[in-house]
Amino acid sequence: MQPGPPTTLGLKLAGFLAAVRRDRERIGAESDRTLGLQFGGAVGTLASLGTVGDSVSAELARILDLAEPALPWHSHRDNLVAIVQLLGILTGTLAKFGKDVALLMQGEVGEASEGVGEARGGSSTMPHKRNPVASAALIAIHAKMPGLVTTMLNAMPQEHERGLGLWQAEWDTVPEAFCLGSASVAYAIEIAEGLTTNSARMQTNIDAALGLPLAEAVSTALAPKIGRVAAHRLLRNAVDQATKDNARLSDVLKHMPEVNMHLSDAEIDVLLDPHNYLGSAQRFIARVVGDEDALD
Amino acid sequence: MQPGPPTTLGLKLAGFLAAVRRDRERIGAESDRTLGLQFGGAVGTLASLGTVGDSVSAELARILDLAEPALPWHSHRDNLVAIVQLLGILTGTLAKFGKDVALLMQGEVGEASEGVGEARGGSSTMPHKRNPVASAALIAIHAKMPGLVTTMLNAMPQEHERGLGLWQAEWDTVPEAFCLGSASVAYAIEIAEGLTTNSARMQTNIDAALGLPLAEAVSTALAPKIGRVAAHRLLRNAVDQATKDNARLSDVLKHMPEVNMHLSDAEIDVLLDPHNYLGSAQRFIARVVGDEDALD
Amino acid sequence: MQPGPPTTLGLKLAGFLAAVRRDRERIGAESDRTLGLQFGGAVGTLASLGTVGDSVSAELARILDLAEPALPWHSHRDNLVAIVQLLGILTGTLAKFGKDVALLMQGEVGEASEGVGEARGGSSTMPHKRNPVASAALIAIHAKMPGLVTTMLNAMPQEHERGLGLWQAEWDTVPEAFCLGSASVAYAIEIAEGLTTNSARMQTNIDAALGLPLAEAVSTALAPKIGRVAAHRLLRNAVDQATKDNARLSDVLKHMPEVNMHLSDAEIDVLLDPHNYLGSAQRFIARVVGDEDALD
Amino acid sequence: MQPGPPTTLGLKLAGFLAAVRRDRERIGAESDRTLGLQFGGAVGTLASLGTVGDSVSAELARILDLAEPALPWHSHRDNLVAIVQLLGILTGTLAKFGKDVALLMQGEVGEASEGVGEARGGSSTMPHKRNPVASAALIAIHAKMPGLVTTMLNAMPQEHERGLGLWQAEWDTVPEAFCLGSASVAYAIEIAEGLTTNSARMQTNIDAALGLPLAEAVSTALAPKIGRVAAHRLLRNAVDQATKDNARLSDVLKHMPEVNMHLSDAEIDVLLDPHNYLGSAQRFIARVVGDEDALD
Repeated sequence: MQPGPPTTLGLKLAGFLAAVRRDRERIGAESDRTLGLQFGGAVGTLASLGTVGDSVSAELARILDLAEPALPWHSHRDNLVAIVQLLGILTGTLAKFGKDVALLMQGEVGEASEGVGEARGGSSTMPHKRNPVASAALIAIHAKMPGLVTTMLNAMPQEHERGLGLWQAEWDTVPEAFCLGSASVAYAIEIAEGLTTNSARMQTNIDAALGLPLAEAVSTALAPKIGRVAAHRLLRNAVDQATKDNARLSDVLKHMPEVNMHLSDAEIDVLLDPHNYLGSAQRFIARVVGDEDALD
Repeated sequence: MQPGPPTTLGLKLAGFLAAVRRDRERIGAESDRTLGLQFGGAVGTLASLGTVGDSVSAELARILDLAEPALPWHSHRDNLVAIVQLLGILTGTLAKFGKDVALLMQGEVGEASEGVGEARGGSSTMPHKRNPVASAALIAIHAKMPGLVTTMLNAMPQEHERGLGLWQAEWDTVPEAFCLGSASVAYAIEIAEGLTTNSARMQTNIDAALGLPLAEAVSTALAPKIGRVAAHRLLRNAVDQATKDNARLSDVLKHMPEVNMHLSDAEIDVLLDPHNYLGSAQRFIARVVGDEDALD
Repeated sequence: MQPGPPTTLGLKLAGFLAAVRRDRERIGAESDRTLGLQFGGAVGTLASLGTVGDSVSAELARILDLAEPALPWHSHRDNLVAIVQLLGILTGTLAKFGKDVALLMQGEVGEASEGVGEARGGSSTMPHKRNPVASAALIAIHAKMPGLVTTMLNAMPQEHERGLGLWQAEWDTVPEAFCLGSASVAYAIEIAEGLTTNSARMQTNIDAALGLPLAEAVSTALAPKIGRVAAHRLLRNAVDQATKDNARLSDVLKHMPEVNMHLSDAEIDVLLDPHNYLGSAQRFIARVVGDEDALD
Repeated sequence: MQPGPPTTLGLKLAGFLAAVRRDRERIGAESDRTLGLQFGGAVGTLASLGTVGDSVSAELARILDLAEPALPWHSHRDNLVAIVQLLGILTGTLAKFGKDVALLMQGEVGEASEGVGEARGGSSTMPHKRNPVASAALIAIHAKMPGLVTTMLNAMPQEHERGLGLWQAEWDTVPEAFCLGSASVAYAIEIAEGLTTNSARMQTNIDAALGLPLAEAVSTALAPKIGRVAAHRLLRNAVDQATKDNARLSDVLKHMPEVNMHLSDAEIDVLLDPHNYLGSAQRFIARVVGDEDALD
């Protein structure tokens, strides 16, 4: 599996920032519903309060600073399910963060690393190990959320005005979801604040790929001249040759007459420079961080 | 298991109406995100489009009438997960609808029934059967949604700019969720339009309960006079007596001196009339259906 | 929804007995694998023990009274997943038990009831309530198991010799599954030991069904004489008539010429007696409880 | 994240072989139950067959070559749930296989690769890409199984003798589970048959790790001489030094007086040779493949 074309750490992080913002927006919108009063007596009529049920309800909501819904909702659990589901999405976003960091921390990659405090992440028997402790936690947390969401969804069809059993299944599921959700945020902050990056290693890894990830750049440049299919086939052959000979793609291309006809050696070098094949990355970043200066 | 105090079919249906409205509101809000463009090339830079990537992206969104997000989101799947989760909540609300209708359709209850067309719901061997076909479908559909939501959440932590395998797990999950969600709506509409109710049977079932579901009404009335605990104990004894003798609760209460001291026979009859123990039911209904006239 | 043809409480309980036996059989078979040693060092080679790794492993298994597997299995979690899944099936069997008991306990049905101790199952505000506490617990427990099983399955694809994060997701999932599984068994035993049944009520409920559940018996008797389709149509009409007039099916049938032609009034009465339409119920029960005397 | 101590591809594959065997064993044992007759009529009594129900049942099982259970089990679904769960475990074992292969195929690792046919795995725009198509499929398939298992478990508590809706939720779940399970096996076979390995690259990757993964070997050798804690601390320092200077661990150790006191340079070289730190790997492999000759 060869890596794809180059991207930047900045674009990757902007993607996480945008996703976390969407998650926060959803949770904020749902919270208004979640923080609503449920007060209805045995079957939702507030009958034991006679004619003043709805007044008591309004006053109770005021005192507790909770929204007052149109009517009691004891056996309609959608508000609770919705908030747990959104915590599930949040941990999913952050699990991807942990996974990407852990992949970058692999010994053979080494492009980024969780910050490592004195007290953590070491192995009891292996002196050389630095483990991605927080990334692992993000992955572990998310692996549990589908189960909690499943329990909440399972518990929805509660019988009549007071379900039998399903209601009880929520009791420790909701707090567990909040605990896991907030732990996930805490671990992600820890990673974000301590993240170290190794740009020399990024360069080394790109170099080790022999220019193959940039094949698309050359193919794209040739397509207007010899047609898209021919360009693709040509680069495919060049890539095969480079792989077979463990040669740099630039060297292979510079010796192919069909390429020379259309591209000079200097043009090939420009095309195969990763810095020249980043497309709209900076503009996309600027849109997310809202820094207009970053444009051009 | 004795039934709880009385409620009304109107309040039950108002509860469903409010829940379905919340579901629709959530789906509407999320749809704006769901219907967004994803266009980023291999790694989200649009590098193969050179410097015009973001302009092409904007034009493409315009042509397709999709929102244009800040940046490509190929490996951030939260928008898709969110909409599938909301379909899960919707089917949960409607599964409760189906379950409640099916419970009301039980031979021994018989208070409501799905409308039955000529062509459906009969049994191939049992000539007397009328099955709650649409209710069963609502329950079956919802039983499958936690599985689909689980798949979507599982697929979130996709590696780097293009996940390995997890992405593919979504391919038939998203359309299946929409199919099930819209089938659920169709079945619910079918039930709602054809629902028949049997108020005579409601009265019969209440009568058969010997007045026991109204014990709370008497207990509540006695509490200010003899204390809450004493009132509860008194009614508990009356209920045990009525159950043992298969007697009406009113008859038992009218023969208890501790009750006679505080309540006349006429007062007992009033307290045990289900129509007098509906609390704020009508007001709650009015709030939901927005019919101010319904407020007395 | 009309009830199906009659069955017996004995056959229902025999079905649960058979299911619980299958569950126990599966758990027993899997336990031999579950109770196996995992001992392999950092990557499963036991390298830090030099050449005596496998001898130490064998001795350790002997001391701990655990089976010794062919090789360390640290990142192959199938044994743990399998036992949690079987606990999920067990709670499923018992949730059905709880659900059936709760359905029989409904006020309008009243054919069986959990035993009710002094201290439990009452309502704090409703003096007349006896709640199916243990049945509710069985249902609540099972609603949580799919989530735990999902977590275990999600955690299976652990990377290389030591997974990142997924492993940790199991840590409180496995003990929770055992706690829920054993709680489920405890509640089921409580129900089984205290179950009270009400055969008078069973008779009342059957009578209230006007004989309709036995329509199949008459249809089956008529089929050899007038054809299966005609018999089914005839009974369908009779059922519709009985339902419309709130009349007993026997009365309707006795006034239908097409029936009189083939069945005498006495024959109709015999066919509509529930005791005569139990088929192989007793034989099936005998097979399960192994009581040959029960045959005939 | 530094890699752990060395292992061998053989031990890794033996682990998969053992896991797949356990999966096959479980599926085989359960199949006997799965392939059992269900024949009971409307409520499990076979009443419409009069007194010959159980004889007909036995004959039917004989003709269909299915096991005949003690009694009809229409609303006890454990047999079906169990087989779907085992398919879930099987796909989990094989998803780990796919994940490990995909990790080994990463451009920066390159130690193994799926065989690549002419027709597959290429990218439409990136001429240089070879994708782990079958590995991705194994991961995608497994991501869907927890959902199917959830549906099956959810559908267990079916009401009385014929559940309402839950039964229908199984209808396309069971065949989908079998389709996914068998697709998973097919992809795994494809990988197993075409797998290519690159031992030169394995050596390169180990060399690039500067000997750090072998730190445990030296620590273990020093522990009897200077104590476990001191040895661990010593190696920790050596690892930090090697990492800081980008030096080979052997060079660092050979210049540490505390090490020289106990280990000669030649001894250090022997300890840091990966071939000498494989512990019981070969014995474990031999146990699984049953080839006694492989011992020593």
